[in-house]
Formats: sequence, structure tokens, C-alpha cells
Amino acid sequence: MSIRLGANQYGKAEVRIVKVTRDAPRHVIEDLNVTSQLRGDFTANHRTGDNTLVVATDTQKNTIYGLAREHGIGSPEAFLLRLARHFTGAFDWVSGGRWAAEAYGWDRIAVGGEPHDHAFVRAGRETRTALVEVDDGRTSVAGGLTDLVVLKSTGSEFHGFHRDRFTTLAETDDRILATSVTATWRFATPEADFDATYAAVRDRLLEVFAATHSLALQQTLYAMGEAVLAEQEELTSVSFSMPNKHHFLVDLAPFGLDNPGEIFFAADRPYGLIEATVEREG
Amino acid sequence: MSIRLGANQYGKAEVRIVKVTRDAPRHVIEDLNVTSQLRGDFTANHRTGDNTLVVATDTQKNTIYGLAREHGIGSPEAFLLRLARHFTGAFDWVSGGRWAAEAYGWDRIAVGGEPHDHAFVRAGRETRTALVEVDDGRTSVAGGLTDLVVLKSTGSEFHGFHRDRFTTLAETDDRILATSVTATWRFATPEADFDATYAAVRDRLLEVFAATHSLALQQTLYAMGEAVLAEQEELTSVSFSMPNKHHFLVDLAPFGLDNPGEIFFAADRPYGLIEATVEREG
Amino acid sequence: MSIRLGANQYGKAEVRIVKVTRDAPRHVIEDLNVTSQLRGDFTANHRTGDNTLVVATDTQKNTIYGLAREHGIGSPEAFLLRLARHFTGAFDWVSGGRWAAEAYGWDRIAVGGEPHDHAFVRAGRETRTALVEVDDGRTSVAGGLTDLVVLKSTGSEFHGFHRDRFTTLAETDDRILATSVTATWRFATPEADFDATYAAVRDRLLEVFAATHSLALQQTLYAMGEAVLAEQEELTSVSFSMPNKHHFLVDLAPFGLDNPGEIFFAADRPYGLIEATVEREG
Amino acid sequence: MSIRLGANQYGKAEVRIVKVTRDAPRHVIEDLNVTSQLRGDFTANHRTGDNTLVVATDTQKNTIYGLAREHGIGSPEAFLLRLARHFTGAFDWVSGGRWAAEAYGWDRIAVGGEPHDHAFVRAGRETRTALVEVDDGRTSVAGGLTDLVVLKSTGSEFHGFHRDRFTTLAETDDRILATSVTATWRFATPEADFDATYAAVRDRLLEVFAATHSLALQQTLYAMGEAVLAEQEELTSVSFSMPNKHHFLVDLAPFGLDNPGEIFFAADRPYGLIEATVEREG
Repeated sequence: MSIRLGANQYGKAEVRIVKVTRDAPRHVIEDLNVTSQLRGDFTANHRTGDNTLVVATDTQKNTIYGLAREHGIGSPEAFLLRLARHFTGAFDWVSGGRWAAEAYGWDRIAVGGEPHDHAFVRAGRETRTALVEVDDGRTSVAGGLTDLVVLKSTGSEFHGFHRDRFTTLAETDDRILATSVTATWRFATPEADFDATYAAVRDRLLEVFAATHSLALQQTLYAMGEAVLAEQEELTSVSFSMPNKHHFLVDLAPFGLDNPGEIFFAADRPYGLIEATVEREG
Repeated sequence: MSIRLGANQYGKAEVRIVKVTRDAPRHVIEDLNVTSQLRGDFTANHRTGDNTLVVATDTQKNTIYGLAREHGIGSPEAFLLRLARHFTGAFDWVSGGRWAAEAYGWDRIAVGGEPHDHAFVRAGRETRTALVEVDDGRTSVAGGLTDLVVLKSTGSEFHGFHRDRFTTLAETDDRILATSVTATWRFATPEADFDATYAAVRDRLLEVFAATHSLALQQTLYAMGEAVLAEQEELTSVSFSMPNKHHFLVDLAPFGLDNPGEIFFAADRPYGLIEATVEREG
Repeated sequence: MSIRLGANQYGKAEVRIVKVTRDAPRHVIEDLNVTSQLRGDFTANHRTGDNTLVVATDTQKNTIYGLAREHGIGSPEAFLLRLARHFTGAFDWVSGGRWAAEAYGWDRIAVGGEPHDHAFVRAGRETRTALVEVDDGRTSVAGGLTDLVVLKSTGSEFHGFHRDRFTTLAETDDRILATSVTATWRFATPEADFDATYAAVRDRLLEVFAATHSLALQQTLYAMGEAVLAEQEELTSVSFSMPNKHHFLVDLAPFGLDNPGEIFFAADRPYGLIEATVEREG
Repeated sequence: MSIRLGANQYGKAEVRIVKVTRDAPRHVIEDLNVTSQLRGDFTANHRTGDNTLVVATDTQKNTIYGLAREHGIGSPEAFLLRLARHFTGAFDWVSGGRWAAEAYGWDRIAVGGEPHDHAFVRAGRETRTALVEVDDGRTSVAGGLTDLVVLKSTGSEFHGFHRDRFTTLAETDDRILATSVTATWRFATPEADFDATYAAVRDRLLEVFAATHSLALQQTLYAMGEAVLAEQEELTSVSFSMPNKHHFLVDLAPFGLDNPGEIFFAADRPYGLIEATVEREG
């Protein structure tokens, strides 16, 4: 039984690029962390160290900077699509790849109540993400976000779950529900207004998290995904990874105090981890 | 020559407390990470393991939760002052200590344009800090913040510095200036409106960073501190630790492209590190 | 077009369990970080918040502790298999799942040259990993490691790669090669001496990294995988993720100094990222 | 009341330098993360942005690389002393500063039972540290380590502590004691065999941690410091920061199981934090 090369990809990870558009006094900044990985015919490279077909990871990095200068960035998804088309177009033996980005938001600093032209402060806590994959001639595009940390101080119950020998958890009809949302939404085609979708999905995720009376984090997750798909016709699915960031009510009775849902211990580990995809049928 | 116990303190670190005020439909949340450390007569404890005078770190943790329930939190500084007074008051042999907190901000989620009563999203990127120290009967209080990440895309020069054999840095009259501000401001007395000071100092730091035409990060730092002290009479000093988060212009000439201050590489390490205190004389 | 629940799993992540075997004066410690996630019929849970079939993540955590007490741990892979069999056996509607662990190594502290009975120091830098997945009645088992950081100060070349407009990288016949190995090896069946395999694979990975004259990190990776499969008949594949931790020769010429491969800058980002699976045919 | 510049220092942080000594087939590698900060007359720099006296942080970085090439590294302490002498000697207005380093250990990879000439694996978990400070013509040198993680599975008691209203902690005569040691030892003079001291202190810390029957982590800490000072005459003090990494016995009674000191939950936060200096009198 012989040994062979299986699935593989290689490239440059975490290329930090900041682009300033300065053709007007009011500058615009775009701030990305880009990873480019190529797939294709790299068997000789692995088996014998023959680098003839290797597009060096350093070259991939340079290409990111060069294409950003020549064509701009626009949106993370659009920029990754440009990279994907460049690499699969320029090199016959590159049949596909994976291009990913994080995009960091900046707000204008207010000076005397007016947004400043060229001074910025890092915005929010979440990070926007984007992903383009090409395989067998098919291009898929996804947008997303990570580290969107949300909390409800009431409006969350958890009861009626299965009980067995190892079950000690008490049922509750009022708990804190907190999570850090990681979400990825897949576009039906590589043509979309990615920035508009991002803004709309982010708002919808927050609103549905807030407005849903929760019987389980799973139910909240599903409601969030369903609402996004109902509104965003260009999307085929939304995937979530949502840790249940437990807040435990502290027992103050030993100190002669009650604790009517007021004082909580925010735990680090372990945490519940709820992962699911909500998708269109067919 | 004999051996002795020198400076020492002990306690519980990173007690994560979330307090929900729910006496009205519109909940309020306070979210802190509190560290309590005691100083005093603990020589026997160290030399022989005699725990008679030890207020267990577990007891310190419980006290944090208990006092939050009995008296509320209010502001990080006020809560730490309460802890300090409790521990130095309740135990004769505790002569002082150090109490520190991080406070995490939450914004209300907007639903249908209205801020929600009990659903929140983690705000901003910076973290508010507070510190109370008691030594020899003297109490000092400081507020602060960390991870306030700011950037100017122009309005920053750096030239005229000393040159020697090891100097290769080119002079520039236009560079990106970026930093992550850590600042600590000291109060003249333990009586102040800590929340109002926090809001005012944060705004002033951002405004002065934005509005100062920078010839050196040191100059920007000093201007920020000077403006804060000029405005906030209750403060005696402001200390800063500000990394110079370098953004290097990418050389695109090998690709036949110019780069008129548009495409930058955001570097991780090494980084400049500028640290200084701005203080009132006398 | 309607909306439905797609792939999903849920459970408790990062359950930190330390087990002391103390039936003899010479204690043995096992230190794991375990994640348990269940898959099955959880549609009602997501759509309506019906928790009838939910094995609470808290129950999963308790089960980890309970089964460790009843049956011991043994090896990470064996313990995860026990969890998998428990959850898929005890609950009709749980059709599969994913169980993962990190295992932390401890060495005995030497006192007077003798290994101590019950005092330990955290060993090495790498972390052992294990993964068990059950789907459609099929159980797969994998062992692995992460953060095995290795470096060669010579014996590594990189030249002959493709050159295009964006290529500026110089060819070299002597560079530092450094990486942090993440490897996962898949067992043909759930029956194996997992600990022996771990020890043998770890040794082989190190030896082949050291002994291979490298023309590309891809070639080194492949040689490592091939050697493991050649030796370990119970394995069907080895997957690697290996960042190329770049060490750049510092240009000392401006200071009147040469640099014959002596002084390097160890960079953080960006880094090359080489990922591949080496597998048996058929 | 006017405003002035208080304490300040600036420089380059986290300069990652790897030095290969290759004058023989058996290479030697030294791997450091160096921070250099200068103190002196920098008032004009802060007040007006006058950079005339500024030794750029980029120049400080270059100097680190240049001096390593010219004079080698030797030990972290010796290298920092060289930097300190260079900067305070070359620039009249630099009156002092702070130079710090982390040093990363590498072991030779064994191939066929023999240590390899030029292939290495990152060693251990702890990191060696060094610190040199110059102020008012006085030079102080310290060595140290961080992240030395140790655990005793028995031989640790904790009882007899003060009890008050907030005390719920049970007394115990057998618990797990675990900590991550950060230690800093100060040399009486800048002349010492720093490497030999490091090896001896590290061994002594481990041995005393293991051999001391512990009644409190404070007592273990003191015993460790006392033993180091008793043995190492060139040292004047040892400072420790030692988190009490709590391991809680899991209550298995609800599952019909006992737990005679076998199954523990390793908690993250909060943690006890014990800090003290052990020093010579006079």
C-alpha cells in the first residue's frame, strides 16, 4: 500500500494591510488582515522539493499589496474575489484556493462635535470576516463577523431538558443569556452588495437576539438565522458558533443576604458551545 | 547576614462580577473584573505557615460579592474605595492594600430604533480601569483606560532626531501615527465624580490626539496629558504608556507602482514604546 | 423556498479535568481539557425551544467527571471513545458527535536527583490532542499534537520557485527553517495503543525534521508524514498545519558589519502557512 | 499651578533577535526578545516636539542587532549590560534607562540517540528573563523566570485562617497546590556568572517547592526564596508573583460516587495571587 499526497494548500497568512484613500481632505481607511492559500498541482513540490510551480508565499504577499494599489479594496469580499481571480487566472496549475480576511472597523474621532478628516478610533468589539474559496471552477463567497458579544439580563429561560443520573442542573425561568456571536453567511453568487449585506445582517442579528424571548440558546440562534435569510435573499445559509457564556447567580445566603437575580459570577470555562447552520431548502 | 520578608501583598485576582439592577423594567448592568490584595502583618504566615491572621483569598472574593449586594457598585473607583475601607477597617493587622478593577462597557441594543430595556452589546474597544491603594493611612485613587486604539492617517511628522552609526531611519514629514493608549489619572482626594471624570478625560484624550499636529509621539502624549490636567482640576497627574504601532509604507516600485502614502504594512513587533507622566508642579 | 436547520452540534467546551491516581505513594496525574458535542435530532429544540431531548451541556460536563471517576482516563483517545459510546448509547436520539481533548504533560520534579512522588512541573511546549467523531454509526479516532516548535539553523534551501511581476524574494541556499508543528494522525480502527503511537510519532516527527535536508517546507512536511505512515501501520493519514516562522537576516552593512548567517530578526506576521495531508492510497 | 513632565522613558520594545553561532558544525542558538528604554533630558521633546536629542527607537533596535554582531550575546544579563553601557556612554543626555529581555530555551533534537548539530526544539515551558536598570549612575541587574508551572498532588494543607461573616471556605489538610512561578532575583553587583545562577536558582526553586510540606502558599514561597538566598551569595533578594491555581474537588455524590482526592476541576479565574520579596537584612 503506497503513500500519497492528499488535500493541501499553502500561502501567506495574516498579511496586515492598511490602505489610506487620500484624494480628498477627508481620508478613508481600510484595515485588513488577509490570508491567501493556493491549491493545485503541488505534488512534485511535496515529494521532491521541486519549486518550479511554487508561487512563493512572499509573492502572494506582494500581490496583495500590489493589487490593493492598482484596484483598491472596496469590500473584504470584493478584494478576496480579485485575489482569487488573479491567482487562478495567472497560473495554469493553480486550480483553486482559499482567501480569507478580517476587517477592522474605525470610527472618526469627533472634535468639537464634528467627525475628523483623518483621525480615527477603533470601533466596536466585533471583527468583520470574509472568505472566498475556489474549487473545481466553482467560486463561493461568504461574509461574517466574530466577537459580537451580547447579553440579555432577563427574557431567557431554560427548563424541560432531559434528566439522567448525571443531571444536577436546576431549571430556571429567568437567567442571564450571554454569548459571543461568530456568524458566517454564504452568498448564492459572487455578485452582491457585500457592505450593505454586512450592515443589514449585523443589525438583524442584534435585534433578533434582543427581541426573542429565549427558551434555549439553540432557539435564539435559529431565530437569528431565520430572520437573516428571510430578509437577505442573496444568502443561502448562515452558520453560527455561539458559546454560552455562563453567568452563575452567587449564593449570598451564607452572608445573610438574598440575591434576587442581581449578583452574578461570569465564568470563563467550561462553556456551552452551540453550533448550527440555518439554510434554505433545495 | 540574615534573611527576612520584604514587601508583600496577597489576595484574590480577577473576580468577575456582573451586577444587574432590576428594580425597573429598564435594567442597568455593571460588569467588573476586581482584584483585591491585602498588606499588613503577614510575617508569621510566610515564615511558619501560621494562618491565624490570614483573611483567605476566598473570603476576599466573597466580600466583593457581598458588598456589591449590600451597597451596590456605583463606579469602579467608588467600589474599590468601599473594599479598601472594609478590609482596612475590619482587620487591625491589615494596614493597607491594593484594589484594582477593569470595567467593561455595554451599550443597549437598538430594536426598531429604540434602546432595549434588557439587551446589551459590548461597547467599544477600550477598557476602563480603576486603582485604589492604601499605605500608611494614606489612600490614593486613580482612574484610567487601556486599549483605546487610535490612528491618524496624516498630520504626523518625525525628523530632526539624533543620527549616529546605527541610525538608518529616514526622516518623514508625513506618516501614519497609531497607538493604543493606556492612561492612568490620579485624583487629589478620594472624593470626586469618577464617572464624569472618566467621560471627560476619554473625550479630551481623543480630541487632542486628533487635533495635535504631531512632531513626535512624545509631543502628542504630553499635549494629551496637559489638556486633561488643564481641564480636570481634581487630578494631580496623568501617566501614559503608548506603543508606537508602526505602519510602514510598502515599496511597490519593483512592481512598477508608486505609493503616495496609500498602502501600509501594519507591523506587530518591535514597536516603539513611549511612557511618561504629566503632572502638576508642587 | 423554506428555511430549515442544517448541520448542528452542541455541548460543553473546555472542561478542565485533573485526575490524581493515588493508590500508591507515587501519584500519577492526568490533565485534560475536554470538549463534548452531540449531534442528532435537535430540530424541535432549535425551532421551538422544546428542550425535551436536550442533554444539557451541564450534564455533559458532569458525565465527563463521573466517567473519569468510574473508569479512569487511560489515554485521551480512550477516554473520548468512552464518552462517545456513553452518549450515543444512552440516548436514542443522539446519533453522533464530536469529542476532543487537549492533554497537558507533566514531568516529575527531581529532588536530590530522584523523581518526586507527588510534585510535578509542566513539561515541554507542545500539547497532545485527541479527537473522536461518530457519524452514521462510524467512529473515527485521531491523535495529534500542537505547538511543537522546531528550528534548523542550516540545512534548508529555497530556490527555483516561479517568478512573476510580484516576485522580489531572493533565492537562498542556506536559511533558517522554523515552524510550529500541528499534526493530526488518523487511526484505521478505534483499537490501538494510543500512548505508544503518540510517543513514536512525536519522536519520528522530530527526527525527520532534523535529518531532512530541506528544499521547501512542503518537502519537509511530506517527508515527516511519509516516515510516520511507513512506521505506524495502524494509521491511515497524517495532516499537518505548519507555519513558516520567518527568520530574516538583518542587513548590518549600514553599520559596517557583515552578517554571514548569524543575526536574524524573528518575524511574527505575515507567515507562510503550509497545510497538507499525507495518506495511504486506497 | 503649572504642569510639567514627570518620570518618562522611551525606546523599542520586543526586538526579536536570534543569533546563530556557526563557527563549528555544532551550531549554538541564542533567542531573545529585547526591550530598550532610555531616560534622560527629554523635556523639549515632550513639550515642543524638538527631536534633537532623540535617539530614535529604530536606532535603538539597530544597535541591538549591531552590538550582538560585534560582541555576541553571552547571557541575557550580560547583553543588557552592554546595551546599558553603550547608551549611557554614547549620549551625554541619556542618564539611565531600562533594558529587559526574555530568553527562549532550545534543546537539540535527538537523531539516532545523538543530539543534532543544527536542529532544535523549543524547550520547557518557562521563559528566562533579565532586567538591567541604570539610574543616577547606579546599575542594577536582575535575572528571573516566568511561567514555571508546578503542581503538588498532596503535601499541602490550608487551615487555621481567620473566619468572619464572609468566610465559607472549608479547612483542608490535603489539597492540590499548583502555581505558575514568576521570580526575579537581584544581583549585588553587575559581575556574576548569570547563566550558572539561573540554572542553580531554577533547580532550587523546583526542589524546595517539591520538598516543602505546605501550610500556605505564602510559606512555600518564603521557603523557596530563603533557600535561594542561602545558597546564592551574589543575590540580595528574590521577588515572587505566584498565582494560586485552584483545583477544586468535584462533588460526585449526586452521581452515587465518592471522590477521595481523585477528580479535580482546574479553575481559571478568580485565582489567589501571592506576591512577596524575600531579602537579606541590611
